[in-house]
Amino acid sequence: MRKDPARLEFEIQARDGSARTGLIRCGHGEIATPAFIPLATKASVRSLSAGEVAELGYVLVLGNAFHLHLSPGEDRIAAHGGLHGFMGWDRAIITDSGGFQVFSLAHGGVADEIKGRRGEGEGRAKVEISERGVAFQSLLDGSDRFIGPEESMAIQAKLGSDIALVFDECTPYHADRDYTARAMERTHRWLARCLQWHEREGPPGQAVFGIVQGGVHEELRREAAQKVGEAAVDGIAIGGTLGRDKPEMAEVLALTAPLLPADAPVHLLGIGEVDDLMRAIPLGMDVFDCAVPTRLARHGVALAPEPEGRFRIDLAKQRFADDDGPLAEGCPCEACRRHSRAYIHYLARARELTGARLLTLHNLTYMERLMAGAREAISAGGYGAYASAVLAGAAPWAAPVAATGAAAGPRPNEG
Amino acid sequence: MRKDPARLEFEIQARDGSARTGLIRCGHGEIATPAFIPLATKASVRSLSAGEVAELGYVLVLGNAFHLHLSPGEDRIAAHGGLHGFMGWDRAIITDSGGFQVFSLAHGGVADEIKGRRGEGEGRAKVEISERGVAFQSLLDGSDRFIGPEESMAIQAKLGSDIALVFDECTPYHADRDYTARAMERTHRWLARCLQWHEREGPPGQAVFGIVQGGVHEELRREAAQKVGEAAVDGIAIGGTLGRDKPEMAEVLALTAPLLPADAPVHLLGIGEVDDLMRAIPLGMDVFDCAVPTRLARHGVALAPEPEGRFRIDLAKQRFADDDGPLAEGCPCEACRRHSRAYIHYLARARELTGARLLTLHNLTYMERLMAGAREAISAGGYGAYASAVLAGAAPWAAPVAATGAAAGPRPNEG
Repeated sequence: MRKDPARLEFEIQARDGSARTGLIRCGHGEIATPAFIPLATKASVRSLSAGEVAELGYVLVLGNAFHLHLSPGEDRIAAHGGLHGFMGWDRAIITDSGGFQVFSLAHGGVADEIKGRRGEGEGRAKVEISERGVAFQSLLDGSDRFIGPEESMAIQAKLGSDIALVFDECTPYHADRDYTARAMERTHRWLARCLQWHEREGPPGQAVFGIVQGGVHEELRREAAQKVGEAAVDGIAIGGTLGRDKPEMAEVLALTAPLLPADAPVHLLGIGEVDDLMRAIPLGMDVFDCAVPTRLARHGVALAPEPEGRFRIDLAKQRFADDDGPLAEGCPCEACRRHSRAYIHYLARARELTGARLLTLHNLTYMERLMAGAREAISAGGYGAYASAVLAGAAPWAAPVAATGAAAGPRPNEG
Repeated sequence: MRKDPARLEFEIQARDGSARTGLIRCGHGEIATPAFIPLATKASVRSLSAGEVAELGYVLVLGNAFHLHLSPGEDRIAAHGGLHGFMGWDRAIITDSGGFQVFSLAHGGVADEIKGRRGEGEGRAKVEISERGVAFQSLLDGSDRFIGPEESMAIQAKLGSDIALVFDECTPYHADRDYTARAMERTHRWLARCLQWHEREGPPGQAVFGIVQGGVHEELRREAAQKVGEAAVDGIAIGGTLGRDKPEMAEVLALTAPLLPADAPVHLLGIGEVDDLMRAIPLGMDVFDCAVPTRLARHGVALAPEPEGRFRIDLAKQRFADDDGPLAEGCPCEACRRHSRAYIHYLARARELTGARLLTLHNLTYMERLMAGAREAISAGGYGAYASAVLAGAAPWAAPVAATGAAAGPRPNEG
């Protein structure tokens, strides 16, 4: 670990078991943790303006080096004040390295595959992987492109993100142990090259997070945790497959977490379902990014305190056609304060943009309140009760945050 | 004309030549005129929530009886508090009768045709027009439907709009004089039936506007103006083809306007381009609805003070790729305050929802400021100078609103 307050500081303010709440201070703001990070993959949180994302309470969004390299290009973004200036966002930005995306061109549908489902019938793009990096064709214009560790860091430097992620290979669930081990070793060599490049040419204020790979294999995760923890990184991300299902994910995280430096901010990559977050936070995870809340919104699905339904309700279902209630009782978002399930059912069925937008506002409000509750609960030493209540179907704003005892109970609705 | 303050009042507060500014008071608010009416055809202003439409300064939106009848149905909407309750909008609503839409099923692409362009290659739906009304098949589910004057008024009664429009036939440009005359006469018989139905069964507080048809034919427009003006309507809308081009439109409006009752609020249906509004206001038109500002936004086009370019700029054009300026200098909208043309160019090219949304906010801000300027200018007796400045390329917020003289000049930017 590197500790350079000019790049990043992580202050743990309270602990409740292994769960912790604190502040990540970086170039453009302070992020209260645990935090959910909305995706601004292509320089916007889909359907929202930057101002609205801030109003929802978010301080950190995640952009993607691969997508922004292909269009509009990092040089164009740099010419407009970096990603902050380009997208009109003056709070913090973390950028993904593009490793996940270039390898998904090769593996095909990695997003599915790392969860243990093989991609089917997807066209494989022309991709060549070597020690130097990954050559591929742009799906936008067919042009030849190359991204390796140095290229990824150079893109992220021009994007000017507050936190860059190193270039890595995210190995899928179906990769065997041998492939996973070799990929991990190359990822470690790439980690060194990323840090060398960044030391020499990176923006002085930009922090770098290393990525722990190793798939579901304990000894590989152990090796990766040690290697990344010893490197001059400002924080640690956990990537790669975490197994085929939620129990296996919990296992892999439980074995990986204790191996990480105790004072490093930990970013669990690509995980953002309500129950996953509730179970990852007590293992010491601090930040989480995930496409699910915003993608679900665009498909007519709202987050809701429904443990039987994966904490989701599909508004397009006929049973909501005459439902006068809000998406989630007590939710302080604009959709819930002002609109009924019946209206949003209708908008979702009619594929109206306003429906996608109201659901995006709701889902991101839900995630922010879920994490705000977790932070309060950890501060009060009541995380266990909070998480249990949420997992049993309490809304984030109604679950108890105080430590168990006489004073505990549901909070008044703060909306 | 009927004058029932329990339904609608129109108070003209100032005149400047034939242009006038005033207030329409109806069940859910006071509309300052001249006013632009955003379309909420299917119960939402696309990409905006109801709250945002209000924040933009709009008091009146236009819903559509045809679309809302097909889905979700007027009974479902009535069960949720009418269109106001269903869409969470507590300000005023005017509903279109559906006449335009059912006849467009027959004529095919009436929207183009009334402007003199024949629709080409469009499938014709099964439609039967009779004295009683129009039978057609729903394009959504193939079900048989029938809308005539009574049905349209019954739908609008259930929607609970503040202002209903009578059921009429909007004749296209290519209809000959004889067809236009016969259609107009039927429209007048339908007007009587609409008013009879509404007198008997309509909501007491709902106002009804009659529609003046007659195509481009002076004697028909004269006859229609007289007929509708004598009926027990609360206001008058001008519909049908206004000719093949802008000069012909100005001619048809100039001959129709003086024939209308002087104290009736006048709604010019479906017209909303910047120059058209500037030329229609001094003829005594009060409110305008049009799909153009919001539809353009979804196609990457911003309204701008560019008379050479139909007051539009197409953000997808390459010349905006590195343009750091706002969509329109001095515009107070969120897109202009916070974002560059370069960013919106990128979002438009990438077809990102946030782009459609920012452009919708901009275009509706532009229209509201255009009309606010017109209102101020009429009050100050300076409408001529205001309209000339806008037509010559001044932004609505920078065009002079005071009467010509020493005090005249561009206003400070109010944004």
